[in-house]
Amino acid sequence: MAFLSTKPYKGTRDFYPSDMRIRNWMFQKLRETIQSFGYQEYDGPMLESFDLYAAKTGEEIVEQQLYWFLDKANRKMAIRPEMTPTLARMVSGKIHETPQPIRWYSVPNLWRYERPQRGRLREHWQLNVDVLGGDPLMADAEVLMVALEIMNSFGGQDKAVIRINHRKLVDFFFSEHLKLNSEISLRVTKLIDAKNKVSEEVFQKSLAELGLDQDKVNKLDQFFNASFEQIQKDFDCPGARELAELLDYLKQSGAEKQVVFDSSILRGLDYYTGTVFEVYDCSPENNRAMFGGGRYDNLVGLFGKNKLSGVGFGMGDVTLRNFLETHQLMPSEEPSVDVFVSLPHLDLREKAENLAKSLRSKSFKVMTPLEVGGFKNQLKLANKHGVRFVVLFGEDELKKGQLLVKELQTGNQEAVNEDQLVDYVTKKIRGV
Amino acid sequence: MAFLSTKPYKGTRDFYPSDMRIRNWMFQKLRETIQSFGYQEYDGPMLESFDLYAAKTGEEIVEQQLYWFLDKANRKMAIRPEMTPTLARMVSGKIHETPQPIRWYSVPNLWRYERPQRGRLREHWQLNVDVLGGDPLMADAEVLMVALEIMNSFGGQDKAVIRINHRKLVDFFFSEHLKLNSEISLRVTKLIDAKNKVSEEVFQKSLAELGLDQDKVNKLDQFFNASFEQIQKDFDCPGARELAELLDYLKQSGAEKQVVFDSSILRGLDYYTGTVFEVYDCSPENNRAMFGGGRYDNLVGLFGKNKLSGVGFGMGDVTLRNFLETHQLMPSEEPSVDVFVSLPHLDLREKAENLAKSLRSKSFKVMTPLEVGGFKNQLKLANKHGVRFVVLFGEDELKKGQLLVKELQTGNQEAVNEDQLVDYVTKKIRGV
Repeated sequence: MAFLSTKPYKGTRDFYPSDMRIRNWMFQKLRETIQSFGYQEYDGPMLESFDLYAAKTGEEIVEQQLYWFLDKANRKMAIRPEMTPTLARMVSGKIHETPQPIRWYSVPNLWRYERPQRGRLREHWQLNVDVLGGDPLMADAEVLMVALEIMNSFGGQDKAVIRINHRKLVDFFFSEHLKLNSEISLRVTKLIDAKNKVSEEVFQKSLAELGLDQDKVNKLDQFFNASFEQIQKDFDCPGARELAELLDYLKQSGAEKQVVFDSSILRGLDYYTGTVFEVYDCSPENNRAMFGGGRYDNLVGLFGKNKLSGVGFGMGDVTLRNFLETHQLMPSEEPSVDVFVSLPHLDLREKAENLAKSLRSKSFKVMTPLEVGGFKNQLKLANKHGVRFVVLFGEDELKKGQLLVKELQTGNQEAVNEDQLVDYVTKKIRGV
Repeated sequence: MAFLSTKPYKGTRDFYPSDMRIRNWMFQKLRETIQSFGYQEYDGPMLESFDLYAAKTGEEIVEQQLYWFLDKANRKMAIRPEMTPTLARMVSGKIHETPQPIRWYSVPNLWRYERPQRGRLREHWQLNVDVLGGDPLMADAEVLMVALEIMNSFGGQDKAVIRINHRKLVDFFFSEHLKLNSEISLRVTKLIDAKNKVSEEVFQKSLAELGLDQDKVNKLDQFFNASFEQIQKDFDCPGARELAELLDYLKQSGAEKQVVFDSSILRGLDYYTGTVFEVYDCSPENNRAMFGGGRYDNLVGLFGKNKLSGVGFGMGDVTLRNFLETHQLMPSEEPSVDVFVSLPHLDLREKAENLAKSLRSKSFKVMTPLEVGGFKNQLKLANKHGVRFVVLFGEDELKKGQLLVKELQTGNQEAVNEDQLVDYVTKKIRGV
């Protein structure tokens, strides 16, 4: 018989305990920050109707990257490639019972059929944060603050900046200054989004092919290199005014230094309708966009006649972990078990179990061996499992109602009265 | 245009925040208990190779209930219907680097194409707890203790019992007393497992069809109604002796009263090889098996020549929630937000943001409105969102550097100095 492979499916990961600990640590920190802003968690099923994505999700994803199949009743089902359609469906389903502004987050696993590469896998987890309703600019400011505070909570204060732009400003520039129609605007946008993938020569040639003369190319160059002061002077329009107000809000929230204007942030203009932003790793060695988001209109339009505008972002676990590793912001490896209560012979099993139980009742992580063994054997077991303290039953100590407690890292060993064990461990581990 | 449905896929659930809070609460409590025994969490991808299930998973699941499809490279992939095959694959992949006994747990979502009914859905979450290696009976005892402690942690001390049996005892009875071959034994087992689905007449007729005469039927009846004392007297065999030792261990661990022998616990004998058990809701109004598990041999045999025996159980979130609701063990609904910092006019935004920030830095959940509004409007907003305290800016108080803090549940309202707000809230909410 041929043996089965032990490898996970291409583009996916197994989370062994050492990786699971990091995933849980990251998600726990994310949750704490987001909850501190009063956001509530939601989740939906892994499978959704294909139609949910066919309508709004980008063409590339639906045609090339979606996992879909027919179920036994011939329903065309898809594995979720993004969370926003599920959010839209759920919000629409209870739109009249849900108080606005709606502040929701989720940390779903998402699937895309991708060629696996750095930062892009077939299965990844993605934090989704959204605000629906409320004053648009105040909501934008809050969501930007949440994104910043998340980075800061990991110690990334001076390592990440948010670059922001506004869809209405770019629209204004394309239609009023370059006099381009919306189709050409979209194609120019896509060229600019992909600019660093082609040579300057190819880029210029493509612009010319779209009908942009040298004057327009110069204007394009000026626009995409302008400071916000320059923009305000040259492009007085609703988008620029909203951006100015948003920047003012962010200043009031104390985030002035971590948010910068960048007219080249575009994020596929066919989806967003207002503020757009990207969070950048600003270290020289890893300077790149990590995640982003923006404001969208009419999230719930597919489900009925209600209208609701929102702002949100998605942040992938792979990208976040890369950032934390690059900047050495990962948690230190700590023993995963607090106490190992040894078992030298079966007669002591009841005593060992009682000791373990009393420690567990104080929320310590306590392991007992699943075999009988002497000092040496038990210490070896405890060492293998990454334990902090070992409780040993010494012959002499037992007669006096005592135990030996050994700290593996330091090698320190002390005799402790049986009825003092919980207090002793509490003091050592929690300092009280 | 026809609008899309807002309903989730048949047999699946949307977790709106109120349900998500309960799911998170349940899983958090599960994790705390399991970690207190030194278990570590793992996870694998949602999709696995179809072959992983074809080999070991029960026929009914693979042929009728598995979600599977071909990916773009024509790989036959399945959505995981159970976690054990993934566990086996992962353990096999690192069998030489992983210290034994391996104590792992996971809380995956699983998919089966089922006709939705009470307690059975197409997508559900299932806690999986397993121990691989170690002395088998000590490991069995520990896993049973973990299952019990989980029930107890929810307040189910007097509401749940574990019924245990042993595969080798049942085998011994079938082969040595009834003189049945393994094929007939299996078919008799299945009849007994499904006994309460058919009439006594049909049951007896089916037994006769399998060749069991009246003498054997009487023996069957005696066996499945015997006390453990009777079993020890009449069926002296390794299975009965192991059970006696296991019951002794459980007594030492203080679980004597919550574990009972029940020879009718069978759990599909083609999979388990030693101890088998089921956790029962023992209240008269809901008397039924909630979840179970047992010992299996050679978990990793599909992946290579290594051998490893284990014991484990799986516990579904739907069943657990039913149990908690039946016994009124659900958490009380608490305000999801600690403090609402109001915003009467834009000039106060910076001050409001700073107050919110200082509260968030102490891990309070703080909401700020995304619109400007007077007292009445802001109180209405805070009420809608389920907030505990509201910070209001009163004209008179502002002049004195004070704020008004109102507790919504009691209606109490106090003037608090601005620089005392964090201390005030801390004392009110955390009592220190």
